Amino acid sequence: MKLEELQAFLRQEFPQVAEEFRVEEAGEELALRLIVAERHLRPGGTVSGPAMFGLADVAFYLALLQRIGPVALAVTTNCSIDFLRKPAAGCDLIARARMLKLGRVLAVGDVLIWSEGMDQPVAHASLTYSIPPR
Amino acid sequence: MKLEELQAFLRQEFPQVAEEFRVEEAGEELALRLIVAERHLRPGGTVSGPAMFGLADVAFYLALLQRIGPVALAVTTNCSIDFLRKPAAGCDLIARARMLKLGRVLAVGDVLIWSEGMDQPVAHASLTYSIPPR
Amino acid sequence: MKLEELQAFLRQEFPQVAEEFRVEEAGEELALRLIVAERHLRPGGTVSGPAMFGLADVAFYLALLQRIGPVALAVTTNCSIDFLRKPAAGCDLIARARMLKLGRVLAVGDVLIWSEGMDQPVAHASLTYSIPPR
Amino acid sequence: MKLEELQAFLRQEFPQVAEEFRVEEAGEELALRLIVAERHLRPGGTVSGPAMFGLADVAFYLALLQRIGPVALAVTTNCSIDFLRKPAAGCDLIARARMLKLGRVLAVGDVLIWSEGMDQPVAHASLTYSIPPR
Repeated sequence: MKLEELQAFLRQEFPQVAEEFRVEEAGEELALRLIVAERHLRPGGTVSGPAMFGLADVAFYLALLQRIGPVALAVTTNCSIDFLRKPAAGCDLIARARMLKLGRVLAVGDVLIWSEGMDQPVAHASLTYSIPPR
Repeated sequence: MKLEELQAFLRQEFPQVAEEFRVEEAGEELALRLIVAERHLRPGGTVSGPAMFGLADVAFYLALLQRIGPVALAVTTNCSIDFLRKPAAGCDLIARARMLKLGRVLAVGDVLIWSEGMDQPVAHASLTYSIPPR
Repeated sequence: MKLEELQAFLRQEFPQVAEEFRVEEAGEELALRLIVAERHLRPGGTVSGPAMFGLADVAFYLALLQRIGPVALAVTTNCSIDFLRKPAAGCDLIARARMLKLGRVLAVGDVLIWSEGMDQPVAHASLTYSIPPR
Repeated sequence: MKLEELQAFLRQEFPQVAEEFRVEEAGEELALRLIVAERHLRPGGTVSGPAMFGLADVAFYLALLQRIGPVALAVTTNCSIDFLRKPAAGCDLIARARMLKLGRVLAVGDVLIWSEGMDQPVAHASLTYSIPPR
């Protein structure tokens, strides 16, 4: 799937969250923006852990769909996430997803997340998705 | 901290999310209920991954505060979560948090999550929190 | 498979390591002893990380075989391990493995490890195994 | 520390394992070779999980010492490792370690491992080390 198709797929299948995310690149790596809003924040104005987890999860999901097509039923089986630094207040987050293995039943990869414009990542997640039989 | 103090702490420090959670036990293990609402759901009526991640994170945070007192600045450094089964539709989730190590700078434990009334867990998370110097 | 069958399976399929391990229980949980020897130690007499990883991995593998029979080709796909405390010098380690999900293609569980005779665990691991199609 | 100092540190502090490992690069990333021998193998000639875990652990440890100097007491607190493919038989393994965060008390990074000469990685590990107070 190409960038526009991925964005359209999100809008159609996940209307609750589609407006939060914008696919920015869909090449060897997939880049996804979280448009940060009030509901993503914790006291102090920093993005919450669950919002970063959700960003990593959607970024890797789209990196998988990019390769296998619109399989809505692929599901996360494991995510290990390290929180490295506090995200900058008032900034969107940018995630970059990398595919490490695309097997018949499992896909494995990782995602780095940055506050927009910063050098150093705020979180790193490793994810495994289970791919349904076709 | 006791059960009522933990619930009051949530209300005061995290008003955005406090009404979603109810502390049900605060003994050797801590039990926390996620009162499932529309915003926690994915298509098909199942609770989303980020909502389960958030539940595990808050449950272990409260298990930590129970032991060290109201330290708002303790932060998650790592969470590894396995999604085991689809949560039952229309059910609250119950998390049970266990402390495995409470050190000077790190606390480590795990959390099991069930759909209320079910035998088999829907998710299992291992978490590490960093405790600020006092 | 019963306790004696598991021990015999280890001897036959993994002769390089079978004499290091002794199955101590094979009930709802599986208990496995690592008979600590010189080659498991780091400077200071403490058991090395890779030896604890290996113990967790074999313990969960046996807990899986106990349920599905002697399937030599099941393989570890993920292990997240927390090292909690330094193991006591001159003690065997005891691992207890718990099955959280036994699916058609994936098995997920966790393992706690203690120095023999101690109250507090030295390590906790969550593992996923991939089960080959039959 | 420079490449030769890291190799000398290994020889002095970890004589049991130093001859297994060769530091190949110590720049922005650190590359470490595991010289595969009989004791690293499982039936079928493939490198065992604990040997890959050990390689990831030592590679990240050296990437940390490279930055903070010869602190023998830094210890692994967490490792999450994904096993992606079977290593090629009769090949050394090459690990490349990347530092994602070097804090005052914690260092976090990841390690990719390849069979020498292959394109696709055999394992990916995320590690956290605790740095002792100085």
